Amino acid sequence: MQKYEGAMDRGLEGVVACSTAVSSIIDATLFYRGFTIEDLAAHSSFEEVIFLLWNNRLPDKEELQVLQQNLLSNMSFSDAEILQLKALPVKEVHPMAWLRTAISVLALLDPKSQSTQKEDQLFIRNALTGKMLSLVALFNCLRQGRDLLPIQKEYSMAWNFLNCLQGEEPTEEQTKVFDTCLILHADHSLNCSTFTARVTASSLSDMYSSIVSAIGALKGPLHGGANEEVLKTLKDIGSVDNVEAWLKNALANKYKIMGFGHRVYKNGDPRAKVLKSMSQSLCEKSGNAHLFEMSNLLESLMKKEKNILPNVDFYSATVYYSLGITSDLFTPIFAASRISGWLAHILEQWEDNRIYRPKGQWRGKAGQLWKPFDQR
Amino acid sequence: MQKYEGAMDRGLEGVVACSTAVSSIIDATLFYRGFTIEDLAAHSSFEEVIFLLWNNRLPDKEELQVLQQNLLSNMSFSDAEILQLKALPVKEVHPMAWLRTAISVLALLDPKSQSTQKEDQLFIRNALTGKMLSLVALFNCLRQGRDLLPIQKEYSMAWNFLNCLQGEEPTEEQTKVFDTCLILHADHSLNCSTFTARVTASSLSDMYSSIVSAIGALKGPLHGGANEEVLKTLKDIGSVDNVEAWLKNALANKYKIMGFGHRVYKNGDPRAKVLKSMSQSLCEKSGNAHLFEMSNLLESLMKKEKNILPNVDFYSATVYYSLGITSDLFTPIFAASRISGWLAHILEQWEDNRIYRPKGQWRGKAGQLWKPFDQR
Repeated sequence: MQKYEGAMDRGLEGVVACSTAVSSIIDATLFYRGFTIEDLAAHSSFEEVIFLLWNNRLPDKEELQVLQQNLLSNMSFSDAEILQLKALPVKEVHPMAWLRTAISVLALLDPKSQSTQKEDQLFIRNALTGKMLSLVALFNCLRQGRDLLPIQKEYSMAWNFLNCLQGEEPTEEQTKVFDTCLILHADHSLNCSTFTARVTASSLSDMYSSIVSAIGALKGPLHGGANEEVLKTLKDIGSVDNVEAWLKNALANKYKIMGFGHRVYKNGDPRAKVLKSMSQSLCEKSGNAHLFEMSNLLESLMKKEKNILPNVDFYSATVYYSLGITSDLFTPIFAASRISGWLAHILEQWEDNRIYRPKGQWRGKAGQLWKPFDQR
Repeated sequence: MQKYEGAMDRGLEGVVACSTAVSSIIDATLFYRGFTIEDLAAHSSFEEVIFLLWNNRLPDKEELQVLQQNLLSNMSFSDAEILQLKALPVKEVHPMAWLRTAISVLALLDPKSQSTQKEDQLFIRNALTGKMLSLVALFNCLRQGRDLLPIQKEYSMAWNFLNCLQGEEPTEEQTKVFDTCLILHADHSLNCSTFTARVTASSLSDMYSSIVSAIGALKGPLHGGANEEVLKTLKDIGSVDNVEAWLKNALANKYKIMGFGHRVYKNGDPRAKVLKSMSQSLCEKSGNAHLFEMSNLLESLMKKEKNILPNVDFYSATVYYSLGITSDLFTPIFAASRISGWLAHILEQWEDNRIYRPKGQWRGKAGQLWKPFDQR
């Protein structure tokens, strides 16, 4: 192996940290297990994509049904779990901090949480993926003083989530759009939270610890928090007429325009393109046509002025808003989708593990000697 | 900056991930802020080392006193905190999983947990460092059905921890030895948990999230769990007479001998040398002389047979055991010391931040196409 002492790529940009067969970004195309994201968004369901990420192939009909039923079962909580989760503070807490804590608490109730048996780990993988989406709905219910509705096993995870979140049945289009959002966010190679999950897993710590770490990393505004900021931006701008003046001012003052640009996709984020058409239709139907028009105009002006294109966060903001989802739940929903990828990466890490221990380039003092107070 | 596409160092071994001025390992010598660990272990206190790690210089007398009082104040919990912490399951849970959850819960009670103000971050840094050590003692009290004793501000953190943990006042030697252990574990460059803390912090997530991630990484048996395993080994061997036969069998069967070897120190871990003399004295005084003798013999035989030397975990096992500390608290104590380093690294990361996003080397399928069930 080569050594690169002395050289340094900040943020490990361009450094290969491991080999992977989960997802790849090649020539600005995002692939899950070799399938383009556009192909999967057009034809697949979130549950099918989860199967693909975990098994490296599409399921047959029965396999898909078994996984679906398993994940739906895992969307319910035991009485002991509900008791613990209800005991956590919920008012005025950061939803991602609550989610991080909730997963950590669930570990304390799981007698298999420390198991190193593959069978137990797959059990926990399924449990965490089902529970994560329900936890987001539960958090919203708890702060609104509602109980979680029972899971209906004839519907999808997407349908059940929206039903539990809002307390009313979603339409077919709403379900389909939300399901597609879950597909689009499911994996994205070695992003910061996935990398955190792998680094944590590399000490042979447990799955819960790795997922808790990943939630913590995704929580940061440079990572998961951007679509929430996009919505704030659109609300700040207020109307289509204000877009041009707002952008001129923002660029003159070098404000960061949220939802634009991506370190990996210099020619546009493929996920943004899928989201854009869904955003248009949903915004129109939910009486938010102006938000889509503002977004569309902002996109053209940003392309003209800076040649920077929207990323996945830009149109997911208006999609989620049109679905009636509170903006502080955008990142938790991101987590509830991405957990499927995190878990695929954690298991991949363990297949051929080596603990992550990079080097630091020393830039501090040398040769210091301890002295008593009177000589300092 | 150079790019290394295609090349890969597993575990990022030899890859420089960032520059740092916190600690360094140069020619098998461990330095905190330019001071050797031997110098600090001989002359300093844990509180002074914390000041050093956080301020890049030794304190004057008043600065040290201010920090000491601040940390001691932070070792107490509010009623609201105790209420939440007591609500967590404690029986049959992994102490590190409990600690990870406890820190995550404390975030939910801290109205400043999301602040990006430097002043608030320094406040949280101090609070977390004080509370972490108390949490370990509290965990032990809760599972034994005892209350935490009040913090006595005329004593050190080490004294108060031992007092709270055992429910009886430690001797001067016990306090001194434990204080030295805290010094020896406080930082160690970009080890896996510290790196996890920095990766989490790099998305501009909060301090609590970064510490929770680090606890999760330290929890793994390839990282923090080794001294617990050392004690198990010594108990398995049973007596000095069995050491030679046990080792012969272990080497013949290629068992991993815990507490030996280190990726960084090929010529011996400097921390092990400091711990060895303390282990001898404490083992003799606590009626565990045979444990030290077994350790000493194992060390000589390992050197002769494999030329592998003991690491920090090897003699800390018998030191902690002689202090009457249950072996499942060894790693939580490691965390309660290392948090001082984690926090120095998190703040350093934020001074010149870039989100960690390495590349994955693709080794999966290409060109897959979605097909309906009947064509799969």
